[in-house]
Formats: sequence, structure tokens, C-alpha cells
Amino acid sequence: MVNIGIIGVGLVGSELISQLSAHISQNKTSTFKVIALMNSTKQLLSNSSYLPLNLSSWKKDLNTKGTTSNLTSFINYLSESPTLSVVIDNTSSQEIANSYPLFIEKGLHIVTPNKKAFSSDLNLYKEIKEKSNEKKRFIYYESTVGAGLPVLSTLTDLLRTGDKVIKIEGIFSGTLSYIFNEFSKLDGEKKKFSEIVGIAKENGYTEPDPRDDLNGLDVARKVVILSRLVGKDLSLDTLPVENIVPEPLRTLNSATEFMASLPQYDDHFETLNTTANKNRQVLRYVGVIDPIGGKSEVKLVSLPYSHPFAALKGSDNIIAFTTERFPSPLIIQGAGAGAAVTAFGIFSDLFKISERIF
Amino acid sequence: MVNIGIIGVGLVGSELISQLSAHISQNKTSTFKVIALMNSTKQLLSNSSYLPLNLSSWKKDLNTKGTTSNLTSFINYLSESPTLSVVIDNTSSQEIANSYPLFIEKGLHIVTPNKKAFSSDLNLYKEIKEKSNEKKRFIYYESTVGAGLPVLSTLTDLLRTGDKVIKIEGIFSGTLSYIFNEFSKLDGEKKKFSEIVGIAKENGYTEPDPRDDLNGLDVARKVVILSRLVGKDLSLDTLPVENIVPEPLRTLNSATEFMASLPQYDDHFETLNTTANKNRQVLRYVGVIDPIGGKSEVKLVSLPYSHPFAALKGSDNIIAFTTERFPSPLIIQGAGAGAAVTAFGIFSDLFKISERIF
Repeated sequence: MVNIGIIGVGLVGSELISQLSAHISQNKTSTFKVIALMNSTKQLLSNSSYLPLNLSSWKKDLNTKGTTSNLTSFINYLSESPTLSVVIDNTSSQEIANSYPLFIEKGLHIVTPNKKAFSSDLNLYKEIKEKSNEKKRFIYYESTVGAGLPVLSTLTDLLRTGDKVIKIEGIFSGTLSYIFNEFSKLDGEKKKFSEIVGIAKENGYTEPDPRDDLNGLDVARKVVILSRLVGKDLSLDTLPVENIVPEPLRTLNSATEFMASLPQYDDHFETLNTTANKNRQVLRYVGVIDPIGGKSEVKLVSLPYSHPFAALKGSDNIIAFTTERFPSPLIIQGAGAGAAVTAFGIFSDLFKISERIF
Repeated sequence: MVNIGIIGVGLVGSELISQLSAHISQNKTSTFKVIALMNSTKQLLSNSSYLPLNLSSWKKDLNTKGTTSNLTSFINYLSESPTLSVVIDNTSSQEIANSYPLFIEKGLHIVTPNKKAFSSDLNLYKEIKEKSNEKKRFIYYESTVGAGLPVLSTLTDLLRTGDKVIKIEGIFSGTLSYIFNEFSKLDGEKKKFSEIVGIAKENGYTEPDPRDDLNGLDVARKVVILSRLVGKDLSLDTLPVENIVPEPLRTLNSATEFMASLPQYDDHFETLNTTANKNRQVLRYVGVIDPIGGKSEVKLVSLPYSHPFAALKGSDNIIAFTTERFPSPLIIQGAGAGAAVTAFGIFSDLFKISERIF
């Protein structure tokens, strides 16, 4: 059996528990067993026999039987289990990411959609990679880039079989994908930039403050994750990132003020769009990983209508790997955000680890 | 160490040996060791200590030191090795596919781009799946569909995490992709159908007799492979397949006669194309897996210009998975034929097996 401890039971965590629960109830031979749950205030551990938690009443049980959350006791409980344990970190916490080396020391495997460990301090990243090799513990993080899309697994396969990555380009943000797919097109109804950002915000496609999407930091983290996997020691502070929040709006105190002022810049975005459209091009917000030229960056670009990124719809992500073996790029496209597909990526990683420890 | 025996050392096999050789020479800790090679006439086995073959002189060694090929002695040699062995079948032989149950009985793992075992007799397929579960031996065949594109691995992940496949559609033939991408487009230079088939044949994109591509059988096999993976007992004899070779040309004796007669049917294809183009559509040859409606098929269709398959270029494959979690489909696109990308898929599978047996 694979013992599972889950940190973070919000949208993604709840969906993962629901996918796990369906799997376990439909597969008599399932090897997965959830034995510990934790959110920011409470934790629920099974008993000393490590029996599975009842996944049909986990929410109520966490609330009524849960004790005050304590990362140390949570991790110790998992690591003292007689069979191998996997900890799943569904948070976006830097603090928890900082503890991954400790998790590995304690003999735990890790699965996570949390980008922090792989895109912040380079030393932390290296420590995690070295420790996991040394201790033969696995850390899988497919859902950090493109959610459940097979991005990191494909890149890993290309690299370890000796292919040479020439360039990786992608639309890595579902939010910015939606905004520019709606805003910048050659045919169909046209809306103002601020109007589209407003619709995206109302539908929950953006962060509570849309500037947290428009500043490009989320895309930058994904570019750093991919660069490091390709073997380049890139960090957030050296990566050129185009922040498309108009400069005067960056210091406004609230999302409400920002949204109220954004229409003043509709002409600015409209000019960019018209210029692109005149050349039968569209605007797209892309991340570029350039291991050979060293010019990795995150920027708003104009792409010809025939470019695969130009035809994107909705809030899909798209990632194109140009390599020695794939001069015409290997392209992966689909929903890159949302609880169902993020949990799918986590669950897939869990299967990969379970296959390796049996 | 993982012992490797390779059957079939033509284009794909040679490329695989070259990728393996580069990997082994660049990675002191590589766990791969090629100990046996076989083609249709000769085989080369290492000695009783199972030392690695010299991969820099394998061609010469197979020719000069090789003995008459004998599948039984080849398999016995691998199975008697003190560590786990993987046999790689790079042929398209039905006879070798029929022996997979025996390979598994003998304790061997299998990697193959050979479609025969997974698309011919359903009983053989089931026997292989059951035996591999029972004996805990792995059989990986990513390269049977879309060469190295992560098609089967992605489908496996979707299914085992409990996603529900609604439809899989794809352009599964590099040859037919090229022919229709060139023939059916809204803009640009237009050529006659027979002319494009001629160019494809001259460039080696088609089988020696292009009717072996145009009859759809190769696409049908891939549709059967995917259907079976989704859990549907589809077979070649029940799958509707549109053979686009004009009926009177099917019985011609030679490829030369076929090519000489094909121009008589240029008007036929031109009419299909013009009708499609009038509605701003293009012709594409697709395979459809329809696990819910049961209407899996292989056919020539007209698709709107905005469809992701319409923008395809060169000889790329494209596969779209529409599922419960991906209502806007998860799409994988790229080169789906050629020695380098096929060997890449095989080598990736080899890594996956090696991770599971250590």
C-alpha cells in the first residue's frame, strides 16, 4: 500500500480526494490509502495502525475530529508508517516548499502542484534534486506547468533519451490565454481590453487582483521550472518579464481601483492590437525557454495568423518543444488550469511513484 | 543493469542503437546494456557473462560473428540472464508478435513499435495483457501510435485516474497528413492529387506501394490499438475504414501501374476538394475512437478552417482527446513517423520499464 498525506484541501485538494475516493471504491486492488489530511488550521491523522481515513466524510471529520495543524507532527506521522508514504502539497506555500528537503530526509516521496520549490531560490531547488537522488525518494511536479498536460514528463523523456532542446515556447497562463484569445483576433466581435479583463475577473478566471496575472510572474515561474529542467540555472530575478500592467496602475492599492482605472488604457492596448492585425497577426503572451541562445523571456508578442498559438481558444495552454528530433515542434495543448485537470496531474504523478516503489 | 535484446536492426533499430550508444557513453551510471541483436538472417549474442556488445562495431560484428538467426535461442539466451531483460521488437512481424506470450512466460519485458500484437487477433491481445499482469512483466508500445508522441501514456493516465473518454480523433498517418495538408488548403499553390502522391512517393514518405497508405489499414490499426486501451474490444474486421484508392485501381498488379493510372482520378479528388473549400473547409483523413456511441471509424472528412486539424503542416500527426475533464480537448501534435522519433518513443519506454524494475 502507498500511504498518502495531503496538505491543502481547498479546490484542488478536495477534487483530488474525490478522484482518489472514486478510484479506491471502484478498484478492489487499489494500492492507495489516504491516512492524513491538513489545512491551514487543522489536521486529521489516522491511528497508529495507519488505517485509511473515511473519504466520504473527510470534511466533517477534519472539522470535528481534527487537531491543530502542525507540520512536524504531520510529517513524523507519515514517516513512521511501516510502508512507503507520499506527501502531496496542494498549497502555494513557500514555507512548506522549504521543508521538502526535510520531507525527503524523513523518507517521504513528494507530489505537488506548488511551483515555489522549483522556481524560487536555486539552492533550495538543487538541494531537493540532490537529496532525492541520494535518498532514492521521488519528487514529481507535473501540475506546476500546464496542470495535467504532459509537459514535464515529455520534456524529461526528450532529455534523458538524448534529444537536444532548441527552444520551448508556450502560452502558460490560462488567464492570459483567455484575455488575448478574446481580445486579439482577426475575425468576430471585438471588445475593449478592460471589458475582457472584467469578464475574466467576474468568471473567476483571474486572481482576485488581475494584476497578479498581468504582471507575468506566474508565467515567469513556469519558464524558470522548465529552464532548470533543461539544465539552465535560471532564476526569477534574472529573467526578463514584460509586466503588461500599465506603469501608473501598478501602485494602486486595490483591485477595485485598478479595474476602475484600466479603461484609460484601452487605447494603448487597442493600438497594439490594430498594428498586429494590420499584418494579419495577433497578440499573444508567451514564455520562451532558449537554452542555446540564453534569451529566455516572458513577453507580449505578435504572431502570424497561421501560427499554432494564434488559433488557441478559451483559456487553453499550449506548449511547443522544438528539438533536434522535432524540428517541426512537438506541441501539447489543452486546459492548463482548473481543479479537475490539476488534480488529474497530481493523481497521474502518484501512479508513477507507486509504480516505482512496488 | 537492464539487459537488452534487439530484434530488427533496420532504420529504427539502427537509430535506437545509436541513441542507446550515445546515452551509455555519456552516462557512467547508465543501467542499459545491449547483449543481443537479431535481424532476419543473423543474430549476435554476447557471451555467458552477458557482457555488453560493442555498439561502435555492431554492424560489422553482426555480419562477421553473427550466427543464423533463431528466435528460440535468442529468447532463451535473454531469459537465462541473471538480471532482468527487455526484448525490443522493431519488426512489423506478426509471427514475432505471436510469440509475446512466450516472451513474457520466459520472464522478459517487452518494448515495441510493432502494431501487430495490439491490432490483430483480439485473443492474442488479451492473452498478452493477462499474462503480463499475472507474471508482472511489462509491455510498452508507445511508438505504435504517433511514434514518440506521448499518446498511449497520456491516455493511460487519463483512464487510470478515472477520467471518462468521450472521443479521440486524430490524423494518425504521416503520409496521409502530408498528402492532404498539401492537397487541401484554402490559400497557396494548388497541385493535382496524383502529383502530390508522386512527390510523397519519391521522397520516401509513402510505402513502396502508396495504396498501402491510401487504403487506411495503418490508420485502422492505430484506431484499434487506442479503442482496446479504452476498453472496447474493437477489431480490424468490424471497423469501418474508407479506402480512398479508387476502386478500379485496387486490383492493379504493381505500384508503377497504380501511379500511372492515378491521374485519371484527379478530377474526382478535385471535386471533393472544391466542394469542401467552397464552405471554407479542408479535407483531412481521420481516425475516430468513439467509446460511447460505438461509431469508431476511419474516413476522409471535411473540416472547417478553424479546426485544429486544418492548420496541420508537413507530415505531422495530431491527436485530440475529448474527455470529461478536457471538454476542450487535450491535443498532442508533432512528427508521428521517422526513425529518430520512433526510436525516441522506444527509448522512453525502456526508461519507464527500467524505473519500475529497480
